[in-house]
Amino acid sequence: MGPKKKSFSEWYDYVLKEGEFIDVRYGVKGMVVYRPRGMAIVSRLYQMFESDLKERGHQQVLFPLMIGLPSFKKESDHIKGFEEEVFMVSRAGGKDLDEPMIIRPTSETAFYPMFELWISSYRDLPYRTFQSVAVYRYETKATRPLFRGREFLWIETHNLFASEADAIKHVRDDIEMMSSRLSELGIPYLVVKREPYDRFPGADQSYAYDAILPTGEVLQVATTHYLGQNFTKPFEVEYLAENGDKQYAFSTTLGIGISRILGALVSCHGDDNGAYIPPQLSDRLGVVVPILSGNGSSEVMQYVKKVYSMLPGGQFLLDDSELTPGEKYYMSELKGYPLRIEIGIKEARDSTATIFRRDTRKRKVVSLDSLPREIDLTVEEMKANLKTEAEGLIHDAASREEIIELSGQNRIIRANFCGKKPCADGIKDATGGYEVRGELFNEEQPHGACAWCGEKAVRKVILAKAY
Amino acid sequence: MGPKKKSFSEWYDYVLKEGEFIDVRYGVKGMVVYRPRGMAIVSRLYQMFESDLKERGHQQVLFPLMIGLPSFKKESDHIKGFEEEVFMVSRAGGKDLDEPMIIRPTSETAFYPMFELWISSYRDLPYRTFQSVAVYRYETKATRPLFRGREFLWIETHNLFASEADAIKHVRDDIEMMSSRLSELGIPYLVVKREPYDRFPGADQSYAYDAILPTGEVLQVATTHYLGQNFTKPFEVEYLAENGDKQYAFSTTLGIGISRILGALVSCHGDDNGAYIPPQLSDRLGVVVPILSGNGSSEVMQYVKKVYSMLPGGQFLLDDSELTPGEKYYMSELKGYPLRIEIGIKEARDSTATIFRRDTRKRKVVSLDSLPREIDLTVEEMKANLKTEAEGLIHDAASREEIIELSGQNRIIRANFCGKKPCADGIKDATGGYEVRGELFNEEQPHGACAWCGEKAVRKVILAKAY
Repeated sequence: MGPKKKSFSEWYDYVLKEGEFIDVRYGVKGMVVYRPRGMAIVSRLYQMFESDLKERGHQQVLFPLMIGLPSFKKESDHIKGFEEEVFMVSRAGGKDLDEPMIIRPTSETAFYPMFELWISSYRDLPYRTFQSVAVYRYETKATRPLFRGREFLWIETHNLFASEADAIKHVRDDIEMMSSRLSELGIPYLVVKREPYDRFPGADQSYAYDAILPTGEVLQVATTHYLGQNFTKPFEVEYLAENGDKQYAFSTTLGIGISRILGALVSCHGDDNGAYIPPQLSDRLGVVVPILSGNGSSEVMQYVKKVYSMLPGGQFLLDDSELTPGEKYYMSELKGYPLRIEIGIKEARDSTATIFRRDTRKRKVVSLDSLPREIDLTVEEMKANLKTEAEGLIHDAASREEIIELSGQNRIIRANFCGKKPCADGIKDATGGYEVRGELFNEEQPHGACAWCGEKAVRKVILAKAY
Repeated sequence: MGPKKKSFSEWYDYVLKEGEFIDVRYGVKGMVVYRPRGMAIVSRLYQMFESDLKERGHQQVLFPLMIGLPSFKKESDHIKGFEEEVFMVSRAGGKDLDEPMIIRPTSETAFYPMFELWISSYRDLPYRTFQSVAVYRYETKATRPLFRGREFLWIETHNLFASEADAIKHVRDDIEMMSSRLSELGIPYLVVKREPYDRFPGADQSYAYDAILPTGEVLQVATTHYLGQNFTKPFEVEYLAENGDKQYAFSTTLGIGISRILGALVSCHGDDNGAYIPPQLSDRLGVVVPILSGNGSSEVMQYVKKVYSMLPGGQFLLDDSELTPGEKYYMSELKGYPLRIEIGIKEARDSTATIFRRDTRKRKVVSLDSLPREIDLTVEEMKANLKTEAEGLIHDAASREEIIELSGQNRIIRANFCGKKPCADGIKDATGGYEVRGELFNEEQPHGACAWCGEKAVRKVILAKAY
């Protein structure tokens, strides 16, 4: 594998494949196989977010994969935004279907016809649901494993409220939940309010969670949209208000890109030795490696078994394969296990164990008695060590020259912006692809002029290259 | 709702809809929406079986939904068995695809090309995997919610072994696992070895788990197949044996129909008052219902809050809606919550609580102090009360007349069988649809003649009407 900094792309592909997270050799473009190491992290990510959502009053549901065309076509902006990228089922049982069906690219048009049946009174609101599924989009750009594919894993919430204020409050709670989790996982990120021309089709406001990759590029890992009554009106999701009036509900949606978060985790925490998966997401805390050499071997193995029996059940893997200790070290680091317990003749004779931690790559020799406690402490330290330093990665630019210079250094740029599409296009052309990602959440209003055209600025925005 | 015994079909539809388990009004034939009450049980079923499989050494993976045509066509029996019922994606992004893709009806042809890449040595075996996904089959028969649909939820395991003996051992372990879980859930079932002409396409042996519904009909809820080398040969899944020879692996698969098990649970345990979901599968143990009447109301509500605070966290729902106690009773029984805690003025004044249990519909008044313990005891009793009485439901027949008579009474029939298809067809015609389901697992060899044609019997088989 190439060094991460010099050849990120090669490094990334190598770690995903050789670390056995996913396999890209499945043979259908843009679709990958999740191998056990990758799938275990995917399961934990799902559990984490599902439990957050349930605590916030969401109920889990599951809708069909296929959506009928009439339903899909009901919200006109939405269909326009997605029609170029949907997969269609047009044959079944050896015959053409009378009417083809859409494979869900997102599920608003599946949920809303049922919401119409389920919601009747203000007492039914708020109504907060989610489903954990894969969605399908026929990407025509180059696909990149976990970052951009034609099948991706996500959670989508669909929520109804009696008032705009309740819905906006929910959007803010989404932002708090996502920010807290991305911070906890040590993924540097920005919350940006997308420019009006760049919103989700059918949304009044779109907030994106942009992870910052080591290359300086950003990767949208989740989005929250305030949909106003744009979906509830065409789908006639009405409720009887307390005062007896019929009203359309207000709605929101949150999409959490589980595949992308896995990709961001590998990218952000890895180093030249491979991946590093934070302890709370790893299916096992680590691997126990016996170091056997000639005549002390049976003594060491006996001691290893004693050590292994003291470790928390199911949390460690005893690697007693025929590989050399060096090969075992290599694999455990490549796969990103948080810890490794190394046991050789010295440890056996001294009644100790050597703990290797993946984040700092430091070793510590501890007495056997204190091993379980030392593991707990180390894990806590590792969790606390997961830093998100997004703020320090942002560089302010006040002019065209500064924007171009900073883009040449692959920086995340913040600049005053007039809000007009031609300026965004001009920036993109001149910088080899920098996009206006939107306004930072909770950013103060700008003073002065657009850094690109010099006209009055309406907001400060983030400029970055997107994956 | 009609009484369960007299009009099972109406009863079943009513309970699923009004109990808010699923919604059949989605508008795509054979595909239903899982509502929160249904989805919570689905999640618990998945957790239960996934944990069993992990304990048995299976690793969770996730394969794409779509399968390329060349891969799908590699095992000739398999494609013949499925080609009439696959959905095909033939358009995407507004254009016809060069080559259409199959939507997985089952995933052998997705897994095996990757197995070929992953397996190289006897050290890699046994290799046991599973995935939890929905599969898609274009059913042309009438669909029935959860029993027969075009989208159904399942777990599929795909496993490789170095020898036939290891693979057969695994099949027996599957049978043990499934039998133990179906018993625990109180679903009467039979394990039958399917007749050769009735096997899974590409299988050498097929075992089916047939749940027995209250109507006397059987419903296949899971199947285990021994595939021999039928898939490993065309897909070239070879390994280097310990002696240095290249060998094809032996393989097995297990499919667990999660949707069908949910359907069987509702069918088997329900009564004229609705569903009954066993405690281990219910998202909540029950509902607390305040019985308010005039001047004692605030006293009761204060006491209810005290009682509620003593209950295990998250396990009970306090129903303080505006419905009457009678309406709340009705809904909690329809939805099949195992327990109900009823609190009125009498309970408040006596410092007691009334526990209603759903299976026996009996009430018990207990002191407030003993409430948590009484809940635990009742739940344990309810679990122990889940009986599977398959054996008593089987009736032996020795002649055509007996088969016809018993079929008229909707019985499950056991009879000597010659093993020939014309007899099976004859039985089906004469009984209005009774099928030869296969030989009971571990059944002794028969003596005597085929109950239908009088020729030499080769085995005893189960005859039943299938859903």
